[in-house]
Amino acid sequence: MDFLGKSFSYRQGSLYCGNTRLSDVADEVGTPCYLYSATDIVSRFNAYAAGLEGQRHRICYAVKANSNLAVLGLLARAGAGFDIVSGGELFRVLKAGGSASAVVFSGVGKTADEIDYALREGIHSFNCESEAELALIDAKAARLGKRAAVALRVNPDVNAATHPYISTGLREHKFGIPISQVEDVYERAKSLRNIDPAGVSCHIGSQLLETAPLLEALDALLVLVDQLSSRGIAVRHLDVGGGLGVPYKADQKSPCPTEYAGCVRERVAGRDLEIMLEPGRSIVAEAGVLLSRVLYRKQTGGKEFVIVDAAMNDMLRPALYSAHHEIIPLRQKGFGTIHADVVGPVCETGDFLAREREIANVFPGDLVAICTAGAYGFVSASNYNARPRPAEVLVENDGWRVTRERETYEDLIRGESL
Amino acid sequence: MDFLGKSFSYRQGSLYCGNTRLSDVADEVGTPCYLYSATDIVSRFNAYAAGLEGQRHRICYAVKANSNLAVLGLLARAGAGFDIVSGGELFRVLKAGGSASAVVFSGVGKTADEIDYALREGIHSFNCESEAELALIDAKAARLGKRAAVALRVNPDVNAATHPYISTGLREHKFGIPISQVEDVYERAKSLRNIDPAGVSCHIGSQLLETAPLLEALDALLVLVDQLSSRGIAVRHLDVGGGLGVPYKADQKSPCPTEYAGCVRERVAGRDLEIMLEPGRSIVAEAGVLLSRVLYRKQTGGKEFVIVDAAMNDMLRPALYSAHHEIIPLRQKGFGTIHADVVGPVCETGDFLAREREIANVFPGDLVAICTAGAYGFVSASNYNARPRPAEVLVENDGWRVTRERETYEDLIRGESL
Repeated sequence: MDFLGKSFSYRQGSLYCGNTRLSDVADEVGTPCYLYSATDIVSRFNAYAAGLEGQRHRICYAVKANSNLAVLGLLARAGAGFDIVSGGELFRVLKAGGSASAVVFSGVGKTADEIDYALREGIHSFNCESEAELALIDAKAARLGKRAAVALRVNPDVNAATHPYISTGLREHKFGIPISQVEDVYERAKSLRNIDPAGVSCHIGSQLLETAPLLEALDALLVLVDQLSSRGIAVRHLDVGGGLGVPYKADQKSPCPTEYAGCVRERVAGRDLEIMLEPGRSIVAEAGVLLSRVLYRKQTGGKEFVIVDAAMNDMLRPALYSAHHEIIPLRQKGFGTIHADVVGPVCETGDFLAREREIANVFPGDLVAICTAGAYGFVSASNYNARPRPAEVLVENDGWRVTRERETYEDLIRGESL
Repeated sequence: MDFLGKSFSYRQGSLYCGNTRLSDVADEVGTPCYLYSATDIVSRFNAYAAGLEGQRHRICYAVKANSNLAVLGLLARAGAGFDIVSGGELFRVLKAGGSASAVVFSGVGKTADEIDYALREGIHSFNCESEAELALIDAKAARLGKRAAVALRVNPDVNAATHPYISTGLREHKFGIPISQVEDVYERAKSLRNIDPAGVSCHIGSQLLETAPLLEALDALLVLVDQLSSRGIAVRHLDVGGGLGVPYKADQKSPCPTEYAGCVRERVAGRDLEIMLEPGRSIVAEAGVLLSRVLYRKQTGGKEFVIVDAAMNDMLRPALYSAHHEIIPLRQKGFGTIHADVVGPVCETGDFLAREREIANVFPGDLVAICTAGAYGFVSASNYNARPRPAEVLVENDGWRVTRERETYEDLIRGESL
């Protein structure tokens, strides 16, 4: 079960996370419900740190993957920095006890208000995506009498050979500054009074199951660092971005964070650079499941459907990316398997969690876990079909607690008026 | 501008909805912001009603398209019934002043609690999707000492020739009961003490730009009604579903609701049936726009990008369905056009609002309207990237008002704890 973190296992036919039986949580909290393992999250974070031992570094967890306050709090206490993409994410990091000085602000559409907020709070640096943004940061910093540390986000034009929606390092995408033009932009950055061109950054894509493209990009960045140095621009930090994939399918293998981080360390050895990584998915995906209850079985048109109480509004990845998530029962009953679509109650054909899948023979009332759901799960949940968003639960030490309450009908209409 | 309702027009180069200048709303409320025209919503509803004049009928607005309380309130006052797909939608209808007795409950995954809630409130009827659901409704009705009016949702196996995610009338989809099996299910329904097999229903798909498949389905249903009658099952209502499309593109034509409803009326003339329609998109889509402000212009890899402050979390349709929405400026400045991608700030390549589009030559600070955004817009908005959801505004008579406040950072973490 590589598609689940090491805390998850079957004992006497029941699925546990540590010493917590998942069916107990589902019975008490109701379904659908996200559940995360604190142990798995922290151990994945530590796996990155282990690979960079001896190298000055900062691992900035990519908040967009899972921004639950309790998850951010765990990572802050484990020593993580944070990669944010909005003012809302900065707010979350600060609420969770994270330090602004450990925050890197990425993203292609930072608003003036967000830049202002980040400067006031004193974040570590901006990953800057364009000359226009550079000018805006400079202007905002000038007003506050500050000098903003900035890394330009370089687009090294490495084909990440992954899903077109997730791959971001291709030349024709909205992200970054082409490596062929970036030296000129650094010259411009250097000329701006309130900009400190402190770093170089890149992020070539997501859910990469090989590290070769990441290391290829790193090599290109190191050449750039040397070229900048020869122009008198001595960058102090190098942000390699995120991107490590996880095994969504039973037969997939994913790169080891320690090995990957070790490869990064080898390549930068001897340089006076703070190395930054921005892992998101690879820290939280396998640490999370979405618990759901079977509502109906239905046969129509020669197909078998298992209708569960989780839907595309709770977990968008299958509908949006045709993403694969393994679905396993919380109790192994030994009734064999069926070939079925697992679908939710939302009134849309795109509302499926699995298609044409061999799964355990489950019946109405049975509980299932939608696996590898810790990343890009709750964060993109909506109230589509007027469905309250699910609860979130954290399993920590020998106990568990609700870290976000299930929404109520009253929550749906908050702020609305006739 | 068929892709916008009749209330929208340019006056002296500025886009208006009725007498409201949209840039005034954007300046006051901020962006992104949804804006709906009450006049357009009500006139589209009335267009359906006009086609059914002289025929006993009930037009049940499909709440899932846009469930804003003010929109539901408008339609309730105009005499609409409501097609709901969840307990949350029933809650919204009741809060908006709608009557439970005008509510039809559709959907493939009704939970026991939702069925209970609907029975207690005394809804008009259930559109029932399977035998298992029939048994559950019967059991719940028995406990409450009620008899539940039910229409079986028939799958007439008409190919709606539309987007595979939206087409729902195909045999291999999760919805409905195949027409070849449904007579047996009616016999079973008749045998259940707390079920009143009062109707027949179907819904073959969405965003249909021709009415022929809808009328083909209606013909099949009428044959079924006769067959049921000869078995001693006299249904009293016939729910033809929704599905009429709207022109998302400048050169698209869509069916006229009055003509379509007139065709339905002709086909059922002389029968003692209450005819129900479930339009959603065709009532609200053209009545709504999403207002957004340009943040940056960016050229990279030979492509032009316009980065705006609305993103896939605010409007999911382009990312999820590759949907086309026209994008027009709130002020016509006469600077010609550009060929560009219009993208949002979300850190994902799939975060686009338009690709490879000829649009007005807009600059940072300019305002644009993403058109035909009244349906399936706000309802599927999320907080992805920790972005607060946009405000919603209703233009009515000579004024406008905020019907849902923009979310705050505090709203993002409601119910969460460390």
